[in-house]
Amino acid sequence: MPGMLHAKYVRSTVAHAIVRHVDAARALALPGVEAVFTFADIPRNLYATAGHPHSLQEAKRDKADRLLLTDHVRFFGDTVAVVVARNELIAAKAADLVVVEYAPLPVLLDKDACLAPDAQAIHPDGNLLGQGLFAEGGDLEEALASSDACLSGEFKTPVVQHCHMETVVSYAYMDDMDKITIVSSTQVPHIARRVAAQALGLPWSRVRVVKPCVGGGFGNKQDVLEEPMVAFLTWKLKGVPVRLALTREECFIGSRTRHRFDVKGRLGVNRDGKVTAVGLQTFVNSGGYASHGHVLTMAAARKTSYLLPHVAYRYEGNTYYSNLPAGGAMRGYGTPQSTYVVDCLLEEAARAIDMDPVELRIRNVCRPGDKNILSKVEMKSAGMVECLERGREVFDWENRRKACLNQTGPVRRGVGVGVFSYSSNIFPISVEISSVRLALTQDGMVVLQHGAPEVGQGSDTAFAQLVAEVVGIPFARVQVVSTLDTDVCPFDTGAYGSRQGFVIGPAIMEAGRNLKGKIVDFAAKLRGLPPMSLDLVDGNVVFSAQPEKAVCSLFDVGMHSHYEEKMGGQLTAEASSKTWINPGSFGCTFVDLDVDIPLCKVRIHEIVNLHECGRIINPKLAEGQVFGGMHMAIGWSLYEEMYFDPKTGAPLNNNLTDYKFPTAMDMPPLRCEFIDAKDPYSAFGNKGLGEPPTIPQAPAIRNAIWLATGVKINELPMTPQILYRHFKAAGLI
Amino acid sequence: MPGMLHAKYVRSTVAHAIVRHVDAARALALPGVEAVFTFADIPRNLYATAGHPHSLQEAKRDKADRLLLTDHVRFFGDTVAVVVARNELIAAKAADLVVVEYAPLPVLLDKDACLAPDAQAIHPDGNLLGQGLFAEGGDLEEALASSDACLSGEFKTPVVQHCHMETVVSYAYMDDMDKITIVSSTQVPHIARRVAAQALGLPWSRVRVVKPCVGGGFGNKQDVLEEPMVAFLTWKLKGVPVRLALTREECFIGSRTRHRFDVKGRLGVNRDGKVTAVGLQTFVNSGGYASHGHVLTMAAARKTSYLLPHVAYRYEGNTYYSNLPAGGAMRGYGTPQSTYVVDCLLEEAARAIDMDPVELRIRNVCRPGDKNILSKVEMKSAGMVECLERGREVFDWENRRKACLNQTGPVRRGVGVGVFSYSSNIFPISVEISSVRLALTQDGMVVLQHGAPEVGQGSDTAFAQLVAEVVGIPFARVQVVSTLDTDVCPFDTGAYGSRQGFVIGPAIMEAGRNLKGKIVDFAAKLRGLPPMSLDLVDGNVVFSAQPEKAVCSLFDVGMHSHYEEKMGGQLTAEASSKTWINPGSFGCTFVDLDVDIPLCKVRIHEIVNLHECGRIINPKLAEGQVFGGMHMAIGWSLYEEMYFDPKTGAPLNNNLTDYKFPTAMDMPPLRCEFIDAKDPYSAFGNKGLGEPPTIPQAPAIRNAIWLATGVKINELPMTPQILYRHFKAAGLI
Repeated sequence: MPGMLHAKYVRSTVAHAIVRHVDAARALALPGVEAVFTFADIPRNLYATAGHPHSLQEAKRDKADRLLLTDHVRFFGDTVAVVVARNELIAAKAADLVVVEYAPLPVLLDKDACLAPDAQAIHPDGNLLGQGLFAEGGDLEEALASSDACLSGEFKTPVVQHCHMETVVSYAYMDDMDKITIVSSTQVPHIARRVAAQALGLPWSRVRVVKPCVGGGFGNKQDVLEEPMVAFLTWKLKGVPVRLALTREECFIGSRTRHRFDVKGRLGVNRDGKVTAVGLQTFVNSGGYASHGHVLTMAAARKTSYLLPHVAYRYEGNTYYSNLPAGGAMRGYGTPQSTYVVDCLLEEAARAIDMDPVELRIRNVCRPGDKNILSKVEMKSAGMVECLERGREVFDWENRRKACLNQTGPVRRGVGVGVFSYSSNIFPISVEISSVRLALTQDGMVVLQHGAPEVGQGSDTAFAQLVAEVVGIPFARVQVVSTLDTDVCPFDTGAYGSRQGFVIGPAIMEAGRNLKGKIVDFAAKLRGLPPMSLDLVDGNVVFSAQPEKAVCSLFDVGMHSHYEEKMGGQLTAEASSKTWINPGSFGCTFVDLDVDIPLCKVRIHEIVNLHECGRIINPKLAEGQVFGGMHMAIGWSLYEEMYFDPKTGAPLNNNLTDYKFPTAMDMPPLRCEFIDAKDPYSAFGNKGLGEPPTIPQAPAIRNAIWLATGVKINELPMTPQILYRHFKAAGLI
Repeated sequence: MPGMLHAKYVRSTVAHAIVRHVDAARALALPGVEAVFTFADIPRNLYATAGHPHSLQEAKRDKADRLLLTDHVRFFGDTVAVVVARNELIAAKAADLVVVEYAPLPVLLDKDACLAPDAQAIHPDGNLLGQGLFAEGGDLEEALASSDACLSGEFKTPVVQHCHMETVVSYAYMDDMDKITIVSSTQVPHIARRVAAQALGLPWSRVRVVKPCVGGGFGNKQDVLEEPMVAFLTWKLKGVPVRLALTREECFIGSRTRHRFDVKGRLGVNRDGKVTAVGLQTFVNSGGYASHGHVLTMAAARKTSYLLPHVAYRYEGNTYYSNLPAGGAMRGYGTPQSTYVVDCLLEEAARAIDMDPVELRIRNVCRPGDKNILSKVEMKSAGMVECLERGREVFDWENRRKACLNQTGPVRRGVGVGVFSYSSNIFPISVEISSVRLALTQDGMVVLQHGAPEVGQGSDTAFAQLVAEVVGIPFARVQVVSTLDTDVCPFDTGAYGSRQGFVIGPAIMEAGRNLKGKIVDFAAKLRGLPPMSLDLVDGNVVFSAQPEKAVCSLFDVGMHSHYEEKMGGQLTAEASSKTWINPGSFGCTFVDLDVDIPLCKVRIHEIVNLHECGRIINPKLAEGQVFGGMHMAIGWSLYEEMYFDPKTGAPLNNNLTDYKFPTAMDMPPLRCEFIDAKDPYSAFGNKGLGEPPTIPQAPAIRNAIWLATGVKINELPMTPQILYRHFKAAGLI
């Protein structure tokens, strides 16, 4: 924008300290520097960054534990000050010139250090951010004790980053009505608006968020990251546009990561293959701030709670602050971590009773009519068994598995399976609301406005298909307004929780039916025909009994509704709907791989995902979603981890050279299949698919490595370094 | 925008010619020049620029007589080619380097030259663009013949320009869906969208127009000026943003002007003061293109047709092409010209029968219950008489007039009066449609979206007041979305015809009542109360019988409707309404001035406008509107005229140095009063006020000069040069 200024943070060079003094004199003296703000300049409104809808219940709101800038730095890279300058280079140079004096505090990185009784408090209320319990289906200890076998293990998962292509970027300006407009690459425009206003202590309507059709987020942009800061800066600078774009290096530490989980898992099984009990005790490292923290810890149980409906179930979630960068939402939202543990233990159970692992899973997973173990809501669709049966067949599971038994030699083959359940939205954690407006244009197009961000997942295309279907027009006649603007777009809370297709369904259904009715009524009036005899089919109003002959084209309806002098008007329809049902989405992964024992290297030959997520609206987009998720999961399973200096907490690989993100060249052949289904709770039969593809690969790969080598590895990522340690311990090398 | 290119026209240096050859080689060789387009490169879709709504009737559509560029130049400055370059300076330099070879044609500037039988045709169908007749109330000739006195005269009015502060500017880009977005300072975004699409031969929905809250137009931007060109350029250049901003010099000739009228007028009067007949024969100079041309010529009759309902009336409108810049819409739309003639003749009638001029007008103007002489629709409100009576009183007319009789000496005083009628929209010339969407935000604000451009007239403020009134909330709780976007804003045809307040009224009323109902219903459900007992008053839901006590605040309704988990949804309401009634708006001007005969100079002491335009929504804004209109009218009456070389047609004063636009320093004290009224046809009682303030000054001033000096001047502007000629002829100097 004309006159735009650029902001750059002064980030802490220590992981835990009190800021004694900030000297910005040299920075301010640099030509081109417009301002430097520190902790002393900011509003004292604690706010939460997690991108959840506001709740009317205080207890359900996210932990408000941060300010725009801090004088208590809680991770290496925490934001101490911010410089505003004429361009990014000057801003960066000036940020380097700001001198910060620290009073160091002990650096706490892992659960034992953070949760020690005498640990230095990272936040005033101490380091235990949250503790929660789900206990259903009977007493866990009793069930375990009376089972034929009890399996247990300790598991840990790494801190990884989303690595969306577009880094975190936003800018803001204030107009002559003192309204602050934030333009941001966010997954949650309406939430970003609210949180920015809360951070500044302004009425929510003073802030407007515009989200252009750009994206990449994978959950990272479900946090309200820099929107409050750019809003603050333009507010302080009387409306001058200010832009803040994080570098890749900053993104790794200054946005959000996937939480590290430490899990103790136990699972009971009887000789007949019945899994009797599942117990998980999780310790989740939230980093320096709460963000999605404890909500995610408990969601990791909720979202997996469809899978095994007939067990004694106990989930204890513990979430703690540490001096790592803050964890946040990332595709799967804790579920890859919890599923990993359950699936590994299912594999152990199969071994313990010498049952085929697929068979064991088939015997225990949910079926239609079962109830979710936590919510007690009946599952109308639940194609978990079909996924496994179809996978067993297309993967030729039994023969492949047989070929893996009793191998010797340096390179050995393994196959593995992993299963999961997920949800189709985030009810009852938060309200689920979605709204839609449809308008017929003069030339007979239907414009779809909604508030559900397209961030690359293809939702706008799928929504257009649904509109076309309900209204009765060709797909090409739907135009979607992809740029969201909180002032004008119908209200929706955002892109997360694999919710959009499910939650927008009823709104599209209602608005679409209404618009269709209005179009047919108008055409009837225009042609002097009884409306009840007419229908809208493939873009033409027709006699219901004679659908092949157009009575009135959509073009004619558009032209006449707008331009007839005494009848009509613009034909529009709007609907806003809330959802309070949350069906499970299911699937599994089958993997076939080689382990090169001397090289400690895993090579996947083939990996296939099978999903039952209700009706597939757009098979190509769904497949793309699954392949992307599989790629992400393979990275988490085998390659990716953020490393930190264990003493100082300094990040060691916060860049795409040292952080081993797999490229397309690293990918094995990916396959996916969908089980044909329609969920009766869903307006269009569809369920959640955004996140599920990322969940079941890690245990499948772990189980295949176990089968190939006889070595059980209970930590991720299974890099050559980790494999070396385990193979060495097992005497394989 | 990043990468934006800048366009500059190559304008003809002759007023009438065929383009033989365009040589762009030197321009294309200039570094920074990206492209040059000529007539050879453009789509051959004739289009009309007049900003009228599309009509379903072919006959009602505007004359499509132009292309994006021309090989037949029709005025000095016509657009032969367009250069696109990296910046405006390079573009301007390159435009100068384009060599155009012309085959000259005769330059035709005035009506006699243009309408001569053997005149060179400026357009294929000849130079008579249109001819129309209204004849009502009996035979004109008969009525004149049987009147006691018959007054007649020939009148002419000048070509002037709107001189809005912001010149004509727009830019366009094409996105990856091949949709062309035009950002433009236009009064008619939806019309600009349609016309740009027509010019390019594209479906209308391929084009989107965004109108930021900027403005100044006075009718000039009711033409679709440069929107088609910027759309064409980005289309040709594969989406690169291209901007085109006219300089002030270009604006004068390359946008639109107020039409020159030549009028022969006749008026019959009886000794008792009854005006019996009014006949006007107008010749309207449309310049090189039709634009609003003949529609305006005939509208000049329609809009004045409320004033004298009991006469034999004959209006013959003739519109012709010439080699002047094209005339277009300008505040008053032909009515200042036609009213000028009628008012001058009313003055002559008063003199002829020796009756006070105010008294004569009072006896003849319309009263409630009269019917519009053309439409035959009954006037429910018509405060013309009250305006004159109140004006006579506050102006102390009789005493002031007495003081002007029998003067001698070099400086003499005069008083004058002028009356007018106008309309409140443009029905039945075009469809009248307006639409509104209201949405309640989480924090209890009501967002108003509409499609009626705010271009400085204050409409957004007035609309917000109406919304507040209907919904039952404080004004400060209404937020208006002022930036219009044809993809998302409710459909409305634009800012023109003094229509917005009247035409949007029913839509605001309907949407407002619906939203209010939804708010009350939701609050009733939330509080468990019967909805019929509740009302929304001053931003709180209350018991109707106990309005001082809040049952539920708007904030609570907003929060709960959005965030209750199982009830509510976003509360919105939308309405689109058509209007097919068009009440008259009335008023008059009283002026008191000195004429310095030796200096040939007029000095206005005081000028007062009185208006009856129904209910005044916002007195301050209404007053501002009137003062602005008076200023514009004084310029037209006394100072402004565009001069052209009579041989070549070259503009002689197309800049703000040589064109004598009056400044604030040139203004006399301005006063205005409004007659209290409410029109029953109007949703809120209001009628048109945008244009009326510009209409009645010229005759009032002319009549005052006549009274002061005894010299009748039938041409505008009454500059010292013109006065010198008349005073000399009259022997005064």
